[in-house]
Amino acid sequence: MKGIRKISPYVPGEQPNYPDMIKINTNENAYPPSPRVLELLAGFGKSVDLRRYSSLDQGNLRSALSHKYGLKPDNFIVGNGSDEILAFAFLSFFNSSEPVLFPDITYGFYKVWCDLFKIPFEEIALAEDFSISLEDYARPNGGIIIANPNAPTSLYHSADAMKDFLVEHSDSIVIVDEAYVNFGGVSLAPLVNDFDNLVVIHTLSKSESLAGLRVGYAVANPALIEVLGAVKSSFNPYSVDSLAEKLATIAVEDAGYYEAINFNIIKTREEFRASLAELGFETLESKTNFVLTTHPQYDMNALFESLQKDHIFVRHFDKPERLNNYLRITIGTDEEMQKVIENIKKTIS
Amino acid sequence: MKGIRKISPYVPGEQPNYPDMIKINTNENAYPPSPRVLELLAGFGKSVDLRRYSSLDQGNLRSALSHKYGLKPDNFIVGNGSDEILAFAFLSFFNSSEPVLFPDITYGFYKVWCDLFKIPFEEIALAEDFSISLEDYARPNGGIIIANPNAPTSLYHSADAMKDFLVEHSDSIVIVDEAYVNFGGVSLAPLVNDFDNLVVIHTLSKSESLAGLRVGYAVANPALIEVLGAVKSSFNPYSVDSLAEKLATIAVEDAGYYEAINFNIIKTREEFRASLAELGFETLESKTNFVLTTHPQYDMNALFESLQKDHIFVRHFDKPERLNNYLRITIGTDEEMQKVIENIKKTIS
Repeated sequence: MKGIRKISPYVPGEQPNYPDMIKINTNENAYPPSPRVLELLAGFGKSVDLRRYSSLDQGNLRSALSHKYGLKPDNFIVGNGSDEILAFAFLSFFNSSEPVLFPDITYGFYKVWCDLFKIPFEEIALAEDFSISLEDYARPNGGIIIANPNAPTSLYHSADAMKDFLVEHSDSIVIVDEAYVNFGGVSLAPLVNDFDNLVVIHTLSKSESLAGLRVGYAVANPALIEVLGAVKSSFNPYSVDSLAEKLATIAVEDAGYYEAINFNIIKTREEFRASLAELGFETLESKTNFVLTTHPQYDMNALFESLQKDHIFVRHFDKPERLNNYLRITIGTDEEMQKVIENIKKTIS
Repeated sequence: MKGIRKISPYVPGEQPNYPDMIKINTNENAYPPSPRVLELLAGFGKSVDLRRYSSLDQGNLRSALSHKYGLKPDNFIVGNGSDEILAFAFLSFFNSSEPVLFPDITYGFYKVWCDLFKIPFEEIALAEDFSISLEDYARPNGGIIIANPNAPTSLYHSADAMKDFLVEHSDSIVIVDEAYVNFGGVSLAPLVNDFDNLVVIHTLSKSESLAGLRVGYAVANPALIEVLGAVKSSFNPYSVDSLAEKLATIAVEDAGYYEAINFNIIKTREEFRASLAELGFETLESKTNFVLTTHPQYDMNALFESLQKDHIFVRHFDKPERLNNYLRITIGTDEEMQKVIENIKKTIS
């Protein structure tokens, strides 16, 4: 049979499901969606006419987003999770014959989309300390994508450093993937009308506790949003369903609740880093809802397996080699992280 | 700025929203989702943990589908509407240097995906009577896609004709888009293990009254499903959200309800065609939830505008020229179609 694509399937993280588990392997939020979101969900029987198509433009959600950031609705486009919006952005902005640049250790999907869409790319090595060496991107390119904070390193570049980077690369589209920015970073979204090369990507999966709902969005100047819109309309124009749009709108409006739970996560994260340090672990600074940690005396893969036996699911990466003695641990509730620390103590003693 | 894609946005049908409207322009189902679906929706407050990622494999839904068709779960893959599944199928199966073939009048998205993914294609003219001339596809090709029944013509080829076609094109992937098959046609889905070149595409947007939910699926032999799965995993692996998966599963299980409402639609359709005939309209035979109709003495665009003034929304196509004196009218409830007939009488008298 001709024309069938040869492709190695991308393998996402494991999604175990035990009643007693501590699932801290996929950077989901430790806390539930806001009470107003849950109230809306419970009232859906009356309010949604599912036989009708969902909206094409997510007008209410984009309006809520424009109030949140002090921008206009035409600075936003909404998609089925930030994965879909990122895929659309790759199709929209990475059409040059020069390579797209991104870190060699970052969100694994960037390389996968380049392969899928046959986009040339070049991976730029992280520095010795796992930070992104922004100066190494001064080379011919067909666009740049930076996760800030980066994953799975949890490291962050300040808004000032990113502004200098945008000025330096004014001829290139720079996509800044801010999936984790609400755990201590500062978003570049308010700057999109000052930089005509900036595309900021957000998701409601992490800081808004809505991974199961699939809503993400891009923020950019209206000219770039229009190109993204044309690609979205040419791929799957109705990808945000009616239920998701309504719940996401309330979540964006309910910012106070999310600030409070994410403040808790930041607090728990710093306590967890301190507890790990007491046990001799070396943990990178984090502006995310996870930490990347290692121990000079212990095998992290062995620890990963030991934790898993007790239904504590964290993430271990066999590749790249630089990471294979690290664990990526999502920050759960205080209670969960205390159990994790106890379990680690038991294992290494 | 380099690398930005030049693309003409695809323009979907209008989605008006008046309290008193008769909206029969986008082939939505006239009847609500089944009572069990609505009951589940109303109970969502307790049962869904939205902070967790949705499932990757839609195991429950695929299991329900396998019971429905007497196939195995690995004969199915689920996506965010049939639009997403079709886009994945184009990426999966249309990678030849020879042109993909489809009718010149059919679902407008086939051409749009070819443009988006830079797939060569050739549009094959419909016959004089608007039917698909299956014999004209005997030419070099990189795959074939046929909507059966076709839209917006509403015409259908029998399962026997399609089987002969599959045998004749055994070297090509043949995608059969059966979005409308449950309004009087016979699905080829049970044949997927007999034809290793057959990919059948279904949506829950039409016959299951769930356009707002965004669920569609492909049925094929497991080897082809695996390729589709690799592309899905490389684009947006979580595109089916947790709420959509649960509701879609119940809808598939509740087949009896849907057979009953779609039987009503077929009955209303034939009554509506008879009423149109009494007024001198010429209406194509239909195996769908819409009709394509014209009148030898009246201007259909004028009729379209006149109906719209009364908030009756039907579909008129300026292009292609062969269709510009036709209207595509979705079958609503009996009451709605009686109002449409009265309104048409008023307009043309």
